[in-house]
Amino acid sequence: MTRKIAILGASGYTGAELVRLIATHPEMEIVALSGDRKAGMAMAEVYPHLRHMDLPELCRIEEIDVAGVDLVFCALPHATSQAVIGALPAEVKVVDLSADFRLRDPAAYEAWYGKPHSAPELQKEAVYGLTEFYREEIRGARLVAGTGCNAATGQFILRPLIAAGVIDLDQIILDLKVAVSGAGRSLKEHLLFGELHDNVFGYSLGGRHRHLGEFDQEFSRVAGREVKIQFTPTLIPATRGILATAYVQGEAGAVHYALADAYMNEPFIKVLPFGAAPSMKDVRASNFCHIGVVEDRIPGRTIVVGTLDNLTKGSSGQAIQNANLMLGLEETAGLMAAPVYP
Amino acid sequence: MTRKIAILGASGYTGAELVRLIATHPEMEIVALSGDRKAGMAMAEVYPHLRHMDLPELCRIEEIDVAGVDLVFCALPHATSQAVIGALPAEVKVVDLSADFRLRDPAAYEAWYGKPHSAPELQKEAVYGLTEFYREEIRGARLVAGTGCNAATGQFILRPLIAAGVIDLDQIILDLKVAVSGAGRSLKEHLLFGELHDNVFGYSLGGRHRHLGEFDQEFSRVAGREVKIQFTPTLIPATRGILATAYVQGEAGAVHYALADAYMNEPFIKVLPFGAAPSMKDVRASNFCHIGVVEDRIPGRTIVVGTLDNLTKGSSGQAIQNANLMLGLEETAGLMAAPVYP
Amino acid sequence: MTRKIAILGASGYTGAELVRLIATHPEMEIVALSGDRKAGMAMAEVYPHLRHMDLPELCRIEEIDVAGVDLVFCALPHATSQAVIGALPAEVKVVDLSADFRLRDPAAYEAWYGKPHSAPELQKEAVYGLTEFYREEIRGARLVAGTGCNAATGQFILRPLIAAGVIDLDQIILDLKVAVSGAGRSLKEHLLFGELHDNVFGYSLGGRHRHLGEFDQEFSRVAGREVKIQFTPTLIPATRGILATAYVQGEAGAVHYALADAYMNEPFIKVLPFGAAPSMKDVRASNFCHIGVVEDRIPGRTIVVGTLDNLTKGSSGQAIQNANLMLGLEETAGLMAAPVYP
Amino acid sequence: MTRKIAILGASGYTGAELVRLIATHPEMEIVALSGDRKAGMAMAEVYPHLRHMDLPELCRIEEIDVAGVDLVFCALPHATSQAVIGALPAEVKVVDLSADFRLRDPAAYEAWYGKPHSAPELQKEAVYGLTEFYREEIRGARLVAGTGCNAATGQFILRPLIAAGVIDLDQIILDLKVAVSGAGRSLKEHLLFGELHDNVFGYSLGGRHRHLGEFDQEFSRVAGREVKIQFTPTLIPATRGILATAYVQGEAGAVHYALADAYMNEPFIKVLPFGAAPSMKDVRASNFCHIGVVEDRIPGRTIVVGTLDNLTKGSSGQAIQNANLMLGLEETAGLMAAPVYP
Repeated sequence: MTRKIAILGASGYTGAELVRLIATHPEMEIVALSGDRKAGMAMAEVYPHLRHMDLPELCRIEEIDVAGVDLVFCALPHATSQAVIGALPAEVKVVDLSADFRLRDPAAYEAWYGKPHSAPELQKEAVYGLTEFYREEIRGARLVAGTGCNAATGQFILRPLIAAGVIDLDQIILDLKVAVSGAGRSLKEHLLFGELHDNVFGYSLGGRHRHLGEFDQEFSRVAGREVKIQFTPTLIPATRGILATAYVQGEAGAVHYALADAYMNEPFIKVLPFGAAPSMKDVRASNFCHIGVVEDRIPGRTIVVGTLDNLTKGSSGQAIQNANLMLGLEETAGLMAAPVYP
Repeated sequence: MTRKIAILGASGYTGAELVRLIATHPEMEIVALSGDRKAGMAMAEVYPHLRHMDLPELCRIEEIDVAGVDLVFCALPHATSQAVIGALPAEVKVVDLSADFRLRDPAAYEAWYGKPHSAPELQKEAVYGLTEFYREEIRGARLVAGTGCNAATGQFILRPLIAAGVIDLDQIILDLKVAVSGAGRSLKEHLLFGELHDNVFGYSLGGRHRHLGEFDQEFSRVAGREVKIQFTPTLIPATRGILATAYVQGEAGAVHYALADAYMNEPFIKVLPFGAAPSMKDVRASNFCHIGVVEDRIPGRTIVVGTLDNLTKGSSGQAIQNANLMLGLEETAGLMAAPVYP
Repeated sequence: MTRKIAILGASGYTGAELVRLIATHPEMEIVALSGDRKAGMAMAEVYPHLRHMDLPELCRIEEIDVAGVDLVFCALPHATSQAVIGALPAEVKVVDLSADFRLRDPAAYEAWYGKPHSAPELQKEAVYGLTEFYREEIRGARLVAGTGCNAATGQFILRPLIAAGVIDLDQIILDLKVAVSGAGRSLKEHLLFGELHDNVFGYSLGGRHRHLGEFDQEFSRVAGREVKIQFTPTLIPATRGILATAYVQGEAGAVHYALADAYMNEPFIKVLPFGAAPSMKDVRASNFCHIGVVEDRIPGRTIVVGTLDNLTKGSSGQAIQNANLMLGLEETAGLMAAPVYP
Repeated sequence: MTRKIAILGASGYTGAELVRLIATHPEMEIVALSGDRKAGMAMAEVYPHLRHMDLPELCRIEEIDVAGVDLVFCALPHATSQAVIGALPAEVKVVDLSADFRLRDPAAYEAWYGKPHSAPELQKEAVYGLTEFYREEIRGARLVAGTGCNAATGQFILRPLIAAGVIDLDQIILDLKVAVSGAGRSLKEHLLFGELHDNVFGYSLGGRHRHLGEFDQEFSRVAGREVKIQFTPTLIPATRGILATAYVQGEAGAVHYALADAYMNEPFIKVLPFGAAPSMKDVRASNFCHIGVVEDRIPGRTIVVGTLDNLTKGSSGQAIQNANLMLGLEETAGLMAAPVYP
């Protein structure tokens, strides 16, 4: 039985990625697409690459009749999700791709996002959407909060190490090389081709990136004590992908074992043989995450490299993986397409 | 019933693209992969993006037992296919992705490729693999010759115009913007990142590109008289895709009608509304081809723009589309994945 | 004696390119920089690559005291130059980089730019800034109108052929591959990295690009009859450069001779040996233009390929070349830096 | 009086960059160019961007008459310089751009480069070419060893910190984002456009990169004790530039002061205001190096970001800066061209 899907905010990159993935999903059918500023347009006008699909016209959120909708993907800008999701009927399942429900603590939300949360009840209810670590809670959830794409990448390589106690919790440095689509289709000068092409630059340096809120919350939870990492994202001239380099202090063999063990049966997370490191393009346009561990020449120092596609495993693919669980479908349904290379 | 597939030459880009597409094909199973220089290696070593798949090791062609194989994709370098395919048992179906069987006339083959054909009997038997125009012959064929990727692009936009008699056959100019993967994974100086990045340059200028042999053969056949076009490919700094700009002399409305009419029921070829033109990335990593028609300010002049992904619709996707027909499967099986954008 | 220079509109790409070139110009000194929306900022804040230079702060145009200024470069948006230049004292020399004074005929201006010209007297006075063809008039001019970058590229390869009478004037097709900086630093969706990277698309197709006004004006003037060409620009994922492919009907040897002869003594225009074609990156960040001629396989058809950097030879370098003449300096002063490769 | 210059190994990227820079150098003249595999070719055939220059033909090293040559730039592959420089007359000044004379200790050389040094006498004589720190020794040197481009970047941001004693010497992590031209024009699969475009990957991970030999030598020397840093380079899809992110433990204000103080009077090294960080393209194609310091949210942790163009300040520009000193010229002669942006 096909599940009826609505996507709110379908005119952004994560919305378009949801549509792309659902195009070949065996058990999902898109019945409504919203895109306020582009309401009334065909999806093929906004995203001509979806021209071959028979899709509903973009409409305004209010125009959507959610009766009969099994699940709503909410890909709206940060801070607007709160009101919209609060207004949905309680029986509709929701996967939110914004940052609105990632942090459980209202104080933390306010600290990182600069204003109080407007739906603290929902915030309490929401399950953090890092599938591999919240699988059972997601299965029973009504509202799942998709993680930040940087936050997902960092957690995939660091959570098992923190859990296994194989690294020094006070000496974790996470250097992320980030492709541009994570910033969305927004008109900002530094996102222009002329600016970013042949260029590389850091942003939110010094611990000001909001995904640190997720790291703090999750790593402290796993460790059972406060953990604060250093996290620096650097924008690189590519469209899709995040490559994370983590500098940790711990024995490389133990680090590799902890990761290999944690992900042994995971369909999407692949740990490479000891000493090998992945390339960002190895997972492009797919729901896979590749992780490698390399021993440094300095004893006790280890480098962990992880990569995923920010729009897929880091956002819309993760959202569908969670939706599959929430709808009682096969977790991997619609997500096994191989990465696109070259 | 799953069909058993062998891929010869799996270590090149078109071989890897075949594997990628078959990864989610509902009725094909890869049973053998050859890659002579990489024999003995796991596919994941040669192409780490295929790490999640359970694939046979790369072997030498001689090691493959073709008994039980339903279809062989032959993605070997030009000129080596002839001997290899000649040595296969007559009952095995073959889709060849090289240039070896594209030209029917041995003299034309020798003129464009510089040496006599070594398997003229097979050359006679081979069906030209431009699916949309040879569908019925392909269905019954034992050996299908995949087209050149530039040749496919040019034919999709020009064949219906020649057939409909709506353009001047002596004034056809085809200017192709070509991404680099069409040249394969070969070590040539002009294919280095340092050389091609931020660069654009023509190659095989002046009518020396070998795909002209296909244009001459096919366009003359359609027209019932000799047709020679001007064709200039220009390499652009992108990985996948061909964008063709055709300058024709004919009335724009009639040109658009001829294309819209020809492709009305085609699942993969989409003709845009009159006056609109496609972008190369609209079809990336997919089997779709988008075509647009624009009227020039000079009366009687028309610009036709077409685009496809050279590795998919221009090569490996086309090959699977043909194989689907040869094996009695749904023509679109495994090929409906949406383009990857952005 | 150093000449005092003011740059109006220094916060755009052509303004920044003027500053870059003047940085090593032996006889020019920047005394004022305007940038209305960025007034009050240091140039190093707007363009950190100019950090090492000792430059005046960006100010508003009204704040500039033009007394003592020898020459003003006006790099303002189209349509705003007219008023600004009209308000300058008559003794100040001006090189305008906008489109405002390129067309001599007020009717042509209105047809291409959609509104009447507001300074028709200045329009009459302005000299068209294609240095190699208007050298003597530029030397004595008070106001020089810089050409469009596409217009410059097309004229460098076609003017000598039209003048020499070696090609069919009714069968000229100009296909331009254009890097993105020609569109400036403006916030438009199709100029985002996420959109243009790995992409190629045409724009202003069908003869709607405004630089056609310049082609019509200049080619008709050279030919002594009306000449209308077909001109299609295609945006390619690169930052700087234009590569033009012209399809002409005329004997290749005669075409090559006409070009080689026309540019024999030009310091910046280099005609390659017969049969060779240039690459776009061969002239990057320089004031050079390379031109090649290739004979087509169809008798009487010839392909001419030309390339220049749109920001340098196509705009700011050309402006300095003209300013050198107007100021009685060596024409090549400050412009002999070699292209940047790779 | 113009100095006569010979360049050995002019067919590589650093050789071509030397020629590009000397093109506008007021007091250098190229009298000989060698390029063994391309001997007999014009430089314009190997590097068409140098077409406008009047250059000697590429020849074999043996064909060069060094009598009358004031200085030789030796841009040969690693390990071949030793023999070639040993055979030059003792009175000829030499700037070597290879790795052959960077390490003073023969044992260190053998450890990092895998074979004994064949010219240990020259090795002793060679001055390490990091101009800003060896200025006086370079002025009097006969043989100067150009630094590694990664080694230069790391030293510019870390040397003053080690010298000033403001950071923990045992907790230095250097994460480099490296453009591809540092690898030269060599035919390697991972350097193909199809592989690197839209891709990012680490190399020589875990402390295996040879430039660590230079870091060990220099940092230990500055500190007066052994210093070993962690250093990981990541290849990014750009042509020119290195952006270094250093993670250090020390008070950010002291770090910024140490850098600002060290480079206060340096013409090429620019320290940004506290809290700002540079972008890689801010120095492209120039001899400048920009450095920024950002305080982390974790007290006592500081991030230092530095950037330079690997081919210019990291290699050929540095070489000319050193040659200027050796020849008694102005140190900045020929090197003040502004970076090329965008």
